[in-house]
Amino acid sequence: MAGIGRRLIPLMDRILVQRFEPELKTKGGIMIPEKAQAKIQSAKVIAVGPGARNEKGETIPVGVKPGDDVLLPEYGGTKVEIEEKEFYLFRDGDILGKWES
Amino acid sequence: MAGIGRRLIPLMDRILVQRFEPELKTKGGIMIPEKAQAKIQSAKVIAVGPGARNEKGETIPVGVKPGDDVLLPEYGGTKVEIEEKEFYLFRDGDILGKWES
Amino acid sequence: MAGIGRRLIPLMDRILVQRFEPELKTKGGIMIPEKAQAKIQSAKVIAVGPGARNEKGETIPVGVKPGDDVLLPEYGGTKVEIEEKEFYLFRDGDILGKWES
Amino acid sequence: MAGIGRRLIPLMDRILVQRFEPELKTKGGIMIPEKAQAKIQSAKVIAVGPGARNEKGETIPVGVKPGDDVLLPEYGGTKVEIEEKEFYLFRDGDILGKWES
Amino acid sequence: MAGIGRRLIPLMDRILVQRFEPELKTKGGIMIPEKAQAKIQSAKVIAVGPGARNEKGETIPVGVKPGDDVLLPEYGGTKVEIEEKEFYLFRDGDILGKWES
Amino acid sequence: MAGIGRRLIPLMDRILVQRFEPELKTKGGIMIPEKAQAKIQSAKVIAVGPGARNEKGETIPVGVKPGDDVLLPEYGGTKVEIEEKEFYLFRDGDILGKWES
Amino acid sequence: MAGIGRRLIPLMDRILVQRFEPELKTKGGIMIPEKAQAKIQSAKVIAVGPGARNEKGETIPVGVKPGDDVLLPEYGGTKVEIEEKEFYLFRDGDILGKWES
Repeated sequence: MAGIGRRLIPLMDRILVQRFEPELKTKGGIMIPEKAQAKIQSAKVIAVGPGARNEKGETIPVGVKPGDDVLLPEYGGTKVEIEEKEFYLFRDGDILGKWES
Repeated sequence: MAGIGRRLIPLMDRILVQRFEPELKTKGGIMIPEKAQAKIQSAKVIAVGPGARNEKGETIPVGVKPGDDVLLPEYGGTKVEIEEKEFYLFRDGDILGKWES
Repeated sequence: MAGIGRRLIPLMDRILVQRFEPELKTKGGIMIPEKAQAKIQSAKVIAVGPGARNEKGETIPVGVKPGDDVLLPEYGGTKVEIEEKEFYLFRDGDILGKWES
Repeated sequence: MAGIGRRLIPLMDRILVQRFEPELKTKGGIMIPEKAQAKIQSAKVIAVGPGARNEKGETIPVGVKPGDDVLLPEYGGTKVEIEEKEFYLFRDGDILGKWES
Repeated sequence: MAGIGRRLIPLMDRILVQRFEPELKTKGGIMIPEKAQAKIQSAKVIAVGPGARNEKGETIPVGVKPGDDVLLPEYGGTKVEIEEKEFYLFRDGDILGKWES
Repeated sequence: MAGIGRRLIPLMDRILVQRFEPELKTKGGIMIPEKAQAKIQSAKVIAVGPGARNEKGETIPVGVKPGDDVLLPEYGGTKVEIEEKEFYLFRDGDILGKWES
Repeated sequence: MAGIGRRLIPLMDRILVQRFEPELKTKGGIMIPEKAQAKIQSAKVIAVGPGARNEKGETIPVGVKPGDDVLLPEYGGTKVEIEEKEFYLFRDGDILGKWES
């Protein structure tokens, strides 16, 4: 497999993210069955592409950087499996917001 | 959860708003049942993104600022829950108007 | 309610208009039943937005001003109720024409 | 009624035209029943808008002027009644051609 | 009728053409029934518009001139009857090619 | 017929190509029935247009030249019969690749 | 056949890739039946086009080069058979990412 042990560098304005682990228990300590777990829309930015290219071929840098915690839209994104771990690729423009660090 | 206790900074030209509380009573003091309460289209601007990026990568500032009272379109917007409170993300261009302060 | 007693400032290239009152009687003085009243397509401009923003963030002023009498398209526009009065928001580019003052 | 006795100034690149009267008789003098009258696609230009606005807000003048006789497309246009007379608004770009004066 | 005895000047990037007469006989001299006659896609350019206008209002001249023999696409074009003769209006960009003169 | 004995000059960014003859036999010499013959996607460039025109009316030259062997997309193109021979018109941007000469 | 023994040079911003061979055995050495083999989304870049042309006719170079290992989207791409080997053409902008070399 090409990707074994190698980092994936997103192309253009794509952002590689890893969603946070869902909360397994309520605040009161009660186990949350998988089905009831809300879809996690917050994620960690793992890697970013150079940015989209404009009419002149200049690259427009993206608006987030590796390490940022971001809020993803409910839908969209491309699932990517790297060494059996689940990542997602989103376009820079589709990421809703950044959690203040 | 990533967002606990942290502010959400909208990205690009997105605007984070919180709708006003619906009127619970008519002017005559009669309770308005929830179903009959008109959908609140006025809201407070909580946070704004840096603005959309143009072909040169320059950011075009948005047309509203935190603290503005605005009129929202009837549809659209992305619901965002932060610490169990309900917020909405709208694009700058979709907000209909500002109430004179 | 946020809007009580406050003016609404349209955003971008939106135009706030108030339709003229329909004619209640024919020229011959006969009452016109509500159903038969033609939809009023003429209106007064109440307030205008700063204009649309172009690629450089510059604002392109709109083509009408408060006080103009304008001809509206048959369809479109967003109904807005302010202090129980009915207004409409149209995009500058959708307004068909101005009646010579 | 707003328009009574006042001229309509088209906005943007709109052109106000009045269609020519249909031929009521064949060349041989035979009356043509209304149903058989071909839809008149030629019209007189009554008034023209300032033109469409480009990215810089500059107005691009239209390609016809009041008094021109023009050929209209078979479909399209917005019907406008002014003092019980029938006019049409077309976009400058939709008018097919000008009859040589 | 507006057009009687007057030339039609196409507007923008429109091209006025007249299709060639279909071949009535095969090379062997056999009459071709109307139904079997292939749709004539070659035509003579009669008149051309000034050209499309760009963002600055400059006119971009068209790529053919009156007198050229051109190859039309199988579909499209607007039929125009002038003094009982059949013409077609095509956009400059839709004309497939020119026959070498 | 207009085209008799005359070359067709494609307009804009169109490319006139002639597909290669299909292989009639397998490598082992067995006749391939017409139905089984793969659709030929390689072709010879016969003539090229001046290129598409940009906003300023400047012509953007195409990326292939007469004599090139090219790879066509499986679908698309406009069939053109010239003196009973079959040619195709493709847009420059739709041609997939060039075979190294 | 035109392509025999000749390289294909992709046109515009197209990228010619060859997918990696699928894993035939699990890590534990068990044969994976063809049906169960995941669609290989990693591939080697074989050849790249000059890049897309912008409004001025300038070529915008692509973001990958021959020899790169890339991650393809799950769908899309044009299958191309060259000397009985299977290749794919993708647009530069559709390639998701590069595996760090």
